[in-house]
Amino acid sequence: MLDALFRTDAIRAVFSDRGRLQGMLDFEAALARAAARAGLIPQAAVAPIESQCHADLYDMELLARAAEAAGNTAIPVVKALTSHVESRDPGAARHVHWGATSQDAMDTGLVLQLRAALALVEADLDALSDSLARLADGHRNTVMAGRTWLQHAVPTTFGLRAAGWLSSIERHRRRLREIRPRVLVLQLGGAAGTLGAMGDRGMEVAAAVAADLGLSLPDMPWHTQRDRVAEVATTLGLLTGSLGKIARDVSLSMQTEVGEASEPAGGGRGGSSSMPHKRNPVSAAVVLAAAARVPGLVSVMLAAMVQEHERGLGNWHAEWETLPEICMLAAGALAQVRRIADGLEVDAARMREAIDLTRGLMLAEAVSMALAPKLGRKLAHQLVERACAVAAKGGQSLREALLADAQVTAHLATAELDRALDPRNALGCTDALIDAVLAEHGGGARR
Amino acid sequence: MLDALFRTDAIRAVFSDRGRLQGMLDFEAALARAAARAGLIPQAAVAPIESQCHADLYDMELLARAAEAAGNTAIPVVKALTSHVESRDPGAARHVHWGATSQDAMDTGLVLQLRAALALVEADLDALSDSLARLADGHRNTVMAGRTWLQHAVPTTFGLRAAGWLSSIERHRRRLREIRPRVLVLQLGGAAGTLGAMGDRGMEVAAAVAADLGLSLPDMPWHTQRDRVAEVATTLGLLTGSLGKIARDVSLSMQTEVGEASEPAGGGRGGSSSMPHKRNPVSAAVVLAAAARVPGLVSVMLAAMVQEHERGLGNWHAEWETLPEICMLAAGALAQVRRIADGLEVDAARMREAIDLTRGLMLAEAVSMALAPKLGRKLAHQLVERACAVAAKGGQSLREALLADAQVTAHLATAELDRALDPRNALGCTDALIDAVLAEHGGGARR
Amino acid sequence: MLDALFRTDAIRAVFSDRGRLQGMLDFEAALARAAARAGLIPQAAVAPIESQCHADLYDMELLARAAEAAGNTAIPVVKALTSHVESRDPGAARHVHWGATSQDAMDTGLVLQLRAALALVEADLDALSDSLARLADGHRNTVMAGRTWLQHAVPTTFGLRAAGWLSSIERHRRRLREIRPRVLVLQLGGAAGTLGAMGDRGMEVAAAVAADLGLSLPDMPWHTQRDRVAEVATTLGLLTGSLGKIARDVSLSMQTEVGEASEPAGGGRGGSSSMPHKRNPVSAAVVLAAAARVPGLVSVMLAAMVQEHERGLGNWHAEWETLPEICMLAAGALAQVRRIADGLEVDAARMREAIDLTRGLMLAEAVSMALAPKLGRKLAHQLVERACAVAAKGGQSLREALLADAQVTAHLATAELDRALDPRNALGCTDALIDAVLAEHGGGARR
Amino acid sequence: MLDALFRTDAIRAVFSDRGRLQGMLDFEAALARAAARAGLIPQAAVAPIESQCHADLYDMELLARAAEAAGNTAIPVVKALTSHVESRDPGAARHVHWGATSQDAMDTGLVLQLRAALALVEADLDALSDSLARLADGHRNTVMAGRTWLQHAVPTTFGLRAAGWLSSIERHRRRLREIRPRVLVLQLGGAAGTLGAMGDRGMEVAAAVAADLGLSLPDMPWHTQRDRVAEVATTLGLLTGSLGKIARDVSLSMQTEVGEASEPAGGGRGGSSSMPHKRNPVSAAVVLAAAARVPGLVSVMLAAMVQEHERGLGNWHAEWETLPEICMLAAGALAQVRRIADGLEVDAARMREAIDLTRGLMLAEAVSMALAPKLGRKLAHQLVERACAVAAKGGQSLREALLADAQVTAHLATAELDRALDPRNALGCTDALIDAVLAEHGGGARR
Repeated sequence: MLDALFRTDAIRAVFSDRGRLQGMLDFEAALARAAARAGLIPQAAVAPIESQCHADLYDMELLARAAEAAGNTAIPVVKALTSHVESRDPGAARHVHWGATSQDAMDTGLVLQLRAALALVEADLDALSDSLARLADGHRNTVMAGRTWLQHAVPTTFGLRAAGWLSSIERHRRRLREIRPRVLVLQLGGAAGTLGAMGDRGMEVAAAVAADLGLSLPDMPWHTQRDRVAEVATTLGLLTGSLGKIARDVSLSMQTEVGEASEPAGGGRGGSSSMPHKRNPVSAAVVLAAAARVPGLVSVMLAAMVQEHERGLGNWHAEWETLPEICMLAAGALAQVRRIADGLEVDAARMREAIDLTRGLMLAEAVSMALAPKLGRKLAHQLVERACAVAAKGGQSLREALLADAQVTAHLATAELDRALDPRNALGCTDALIDAVLAEHGGGARR
Repeated sequence: MLDALFRTDAIRAVFSDRGRLQGMLDFEAALARAAARAGLIPQAAVAPIESQCHADLYDMELLARAAEAAGNTAIPVVKALTSHVESRDPGAARHVHWGATSQDAMDTGLVLQLRAALALVEADLDALSDSLARLADGHRNTVMAGRTWLQHAVPTTFGLRAAGWLSSIERHRRRLREIRPRVLVLQLGGAAGTLGAMGDRGMEVAAAVAADLGLSLPDMPWHTQRDRVAEVATTLGLLTGSLGKIARDVSLSMQTEVGEASEPAGGGRGGSSSMPHKRNPVSAAVVLAAAARVPGLVSVMLAAMVQEHERGLGNWHAEWETLPEICMLAAGALAQVRRIADGLEVDAARMREAIDLTRGLMLAEAVSMALAPKLGRKLAHQLVERACAVAAKGGQSLREALLADAQVTAHLATAELDRALDPRNALGCTDALIDAVLAEHGGGARR
Repeated sequence: MLDALFRTDAIRAVFSDRGRLQGMLDFEAALARAAARAGLIPQAAVAPIESQCHADLYDMELLARAAEAAGNTAIPVVKALTSHVESRDPGAARHVHWGATSQDAMDTGLVLQLRAALALVEADLDALSDSLARLADGHRNTVMAGRTWLQHAVPTTFGLRAAGWLSSIERHRRRLREIRPRVLVLQLGGAAGTLGAMGDRGMEVAAAVAADLGLSLPDMPWHTQRDRVAEVATTLGLLTGSLGKIARDVSLSMQTEVGEASEPAGGGRGGSSSMPHKRNPVSAAVVLAAAARVPGLVSVMLAAMVQEHERGLGNWHAEWETLPEICMLAAGALAQVRRIADGLEVDAARMREAIDLTRGLMLAEAVSMALAPKLGRKLAHQLVERACAVAAKGGQSLREALLADAQVTAHLATAELDRALDPRNALGCTDALIDAVLAEHGGGARR
Repeated sequence: MLDALFRTDAIRAVFSDRGRLQGMLDFEAALARAAARAGLIPQAAVAPIESQCHADLYDMELLARAAEAAGNTAIPVVKALTSHVESRDPGAARHVHWGATSQDAMDTGLVLQLRAALALVEADLDALSDSLARLADGHRNTVMAGRTWLQHAVPTTFGLRAAGWLSSIERHRRRLREIRPRVLVLQLGGAAGTLGAMGDRGMEVAAAVAADLGLSLPDMPWHTQRDRVAEVATTLGLLTGSLGKIARDVSLSMQTEVGEASEPAGGGRGGSSSMPHKRNPVSAAVVLAAAARVPGLVSVMLAAMVQEHERGLGNWHAEWETLPEICMLAAGALAQVRRIADGLEVDAARMREAIDLTRGLMLAEAVSMALAPKLGRKLAHQLVERACAVAAKGGQSLREALLADAQVTAHLATAELDRALDPRNALGCTDALIDAVLAEHGGGARR
């Protein structure tokens, strides 16, 4: 019942049993074409094989049962394909899966699924980065309390916070581009990765299958060199971490006491009939769950890299459900963050008000800097520190404490003091930093 | 397609959507009975509610969709139940889920699933321990090369190795007994764990629901105290590690060069038509995969324990699919190890032969001990070391090298030497150790 | 520089190089005594060996260098011990480490360290549980907003929250008691776990060494059955998760906007001179860091259980630094939580005020229950829901909205309404639940 | 005692307390220079500050103690630096750490450490890839049994296996190049990442500090956007996985029954005086331990990415020891794999002999292909399968079984059969694949 909560329909389709099967069948069809072109199998065998390379022709439940006995999915798939072809063209049946090994079909099928998955992720990342850019740019003047260690620190803008989110997303887009040539590659090596059953035509066949499927040709088979697929896991692991950070920020902003920003509520989402004051951060919860789960799954992929000899035992098997799970959870989290970013309800007034919660103490440093040219840095600091101590005890605001100090008022007019106490004047480089991130975004969009 | 490879049908049924739903409905029915008994809801509401607490009455797909919007599974289930009851008895419908919160239904439903899962695991553990006890006892005289760091060390017996496996299984059985009172408990607390909506009848209702479901009553609700369920994860994590150890040993024993023991091959399992010499350790692969996957999942459960306030955000959600997955992978691995243990093919002759691979060097210590009473410990050691050096270079066996040394033959008759070189005389306490483990097993069986 | 931040001095001493060395030396001394008693080595060899079994006699740096070449710590330690004994009594030197293997010394030494570590942990847990019991009991009337999903839900008491913390701690105390007999056991098996070098005296020697060291005698050596030590990891992993939960609650309570409870600040801890309004939750940070780190380390221990044959390669090595790290981080976190619990500053007034943040909506259910006997449950619910909608929009409190509704005031006097709106009357069973937890605590203290 | 076993001296120096301190001090010195150039602090303050930015001037133990109270390392370092400067030039002391926050110093210091660490790793990777290239090229004719699922499959060459190792290393070299611009960046943002205390000169100062330290200037501060540092963890996690794969292969090759390749033994490494036949794979053990440990640590880094607001609580702290640990374990494992690759002892004769262990069955497919042109593919397959069945039962080799079959000998002369049974003729594309990997290596070397 939880599939649809944590995963989008699109990504579930990619990693469905059907998606897995079709990936393997696409490999088998391309292999038949390439082997025939290289003269390894008769050209006449191609069409009968191709005609059976459609997932809809197969009984998933039967294949699943057979996979249990065989120990992998390719063996029953090749058997079923062979038997399907045989019933139409017995001669062609003997040329199914020619020269390949189970892992060739499974890994190449996986790569085809990964290609589809990464395309979905990248499209959502593009859209998300646009939304975040709008938030960063649109809220460059939305002053808010910067928070460190869950405590108010000094003023910032909500635009800069959104720019921080965006900055990480731009890097993730770049990472995904960088891993493509390593990940979107053919797997074809035969039983021990030598292409031994193809005599001297192996390289030619491999190149042809790769071209046929639109994949790159790797330097050599990678049956037990799993860094290629493990890198998909780590890259999506990094992405999910950044998504979790966004969700954490939003969920903290939605706290009853804070109320500065809320994920969109449309369609009764997150509402509670018995507690009408609640607005549950449903999307954030899903993202945080993914961010909590994916790291453990990534560690499985990394630990499973220690694979034996020419094809591994057990550790390869450990990947089979783990990598799809990572892809699905990451894509699901990404879709929820898009939803959050697209519809985020920002309460700029409440953000501004929060700054006053600490009675002006957030601006202490700014006042100190205003006094320094007149009193010297040391004395300025001492006066402000004294006023802070008064204000921190409660009762008075920093402004009141400062105005009550003759040494201060002797050198700083009330207007000057108020300028120093205005958080808009304590924002440092937020604008320039937002611009720098937006420039990255613009550049990314053009790539 | 991989579900059935990694999981048994029985455990999949427990953690199916249907199993999850029925767990929640069982909770709702028991709650209705208890609330009526306590006078919180009319007695007349009970039967209409009970009548709808059957999973088969519901459309799983609809519930899954609704869970996506609601953010959990209990909200749509309670809504659907309410609506079902309403269409039969509108008055009763208003008493559905009385005083409870979503998490009460979800957690108690989970506990009911865990109870079924642990029962399956314990039954398989009982059977496995019997099989291992047979192996340990039956092979107490099956001499084999003890191996450390993947190298031959000194002789042992296959019986002792099996006793080592058994020893861990006995401890796991005990652990599972120990966690029962902490895990098999009711969850019922209402919105913030105070039983607030039940006035002063909360404790009474909770006790009644627990008794009704055959669960223990915990000291207080544990909505954000997750050590109870996390302990299921760690306990099964420990178990899966021990299962992985057995599978690792068996798969190494099946190596072409070793061939000392094989998992059963029945039904074409693990065979390869194109490579007839292969006998793939299919069961071991599944177990090793589980042992590689479960640790990462356990880490997720532990990290997710940091839950906020009265009910957590995101980290609770991280448990929902993770704990069932751990249970399923552990149970699946256990079933495969049972299959291995029940049908293990032990080649005692090959085990004995392997000892000679190092030309007797494994017995060097034994010879040294035989010589010591006659030559003094120091000289005995030196003579044997010298003979070992000769033998290690190849060409000669340790026996030949020793017989060629006049200092040795002067003090040790050939028969004495041969007795020292017989691995059966170098087994130390293997028998007593096996007996000690079997005593644990016998004790365990009686508990 | 971070050692002292994350770990106590006491636990660092246990797991220092010196602690590790002394553990091995204690084993060697006990082994010499037992072997002499069994007649395997001369009684005269015992005293010279014992005399050198003191860590202070050795050069740590030299041992560390030698460990690098040897691949473990026991080989250089045994060599150094032998050489020390030799310089005093050459004859005795030949009886050092008699019949044992490196892992015997390392594992038994580890168990001795674990015994010391668990004693420290248990002592801190005892003290922590007392502190938490005081908080639970002392704040049973401190009303606060119960929070779910980081949102205000319904009223609870701070006492119940503390009782929840205590409840988990009581279970951890019990777990630590349960694992003792499995963990605090001797390791002694010789090269392949057969006690082969001790002829028929192995069992006698093992029993004597165990008794000498105050450890239990296991059924058999557990060189590659690592569930015993892995269980220390999982048990402390569970504990650290619960500690993290406490720290998370406290750190959220310390937020500038919340300010309901603070960890003690003594000694300038957590202060910031440039931001005087800040009170950084330093202890909570350390605990949360541990709770984030330990799960990954536990997964390493679990994955490392898959050890080969009679002694494993690489996976055993993976334990060496990992388990001490888990112990140290858990003990360090525990000490910080003790500090938090001992000195927690609770602001009961602010807790009470927070309830009004939602203008009374938290009490909606209570009002509904007050109206039901007079208006029927359905109408009561509708009226309250309407008033809630008014209040949720802002401007009015729920009280005002209800008082403005003639249907409500016709049936409910203002005093009755105010009673319903008083959170103290909506606490359900908090007192009884606290009592139940305190009873567990009392029981635990007596055990 | 284990530090030196798992880590090189060089990498330990980088991540020593001294290395950590010097990184922060380098930041402080560069900041002073840049702030003075921007007119934010007096030029005269620079030299006094610079003069105290040397780690040797400080008492590590005192700093460690202070870090425990402060909750991080930068606060005591800045205090100590300020106090040192003050005793020389009180005026200058007030300009220490101007406008920066603790995390600026700690993160930039970390980046400087990472730069040194990555340089060490890259240098070792360069050397390792050269060694592996030599193995791949030099053993292109060293025929060996390809193994899948720990079983003999079909022939391959040791050169191709080494090429597989090399292929992954080349990709890791590329990954390390790709992450440089994201990782080797300045951290400078002040209390909330706005550079607020620098007024309008923040961007200028940041650019100057970055240039001074030879780091890139990031788009904005990344205090809570941790993908930059987490990516170091994942990249080294991938590397360690590939190193573990090499170590696993080597350790399996060193098994007593296999003996095809051994890590170098120089300096008594891995020897055992009591078991002279043993040659323990000490280096492999260290690498496998790292490969088992790093994945869990990577998961910690990924989980810790969910950091709050402008600066995180607890999760940032979780990085502090974890990332250095990953770097050290990866570098340590890499050094050991270099040692293995540089000195690997390959026993080509034993590799060749192993092929005959299965009595020629590994060549069944090759024979089938030789017969096919004469008998048709189907009949050829049947005849060979029959002969395999005979050979698999034992007693006869495949060659003998084939020669005993008149149908076979009628179509295949003995010389033809022997050609088909020669594994050198069944190697498929091993040469071309090795060449493809070597071309990658050559290209990588030129980059």
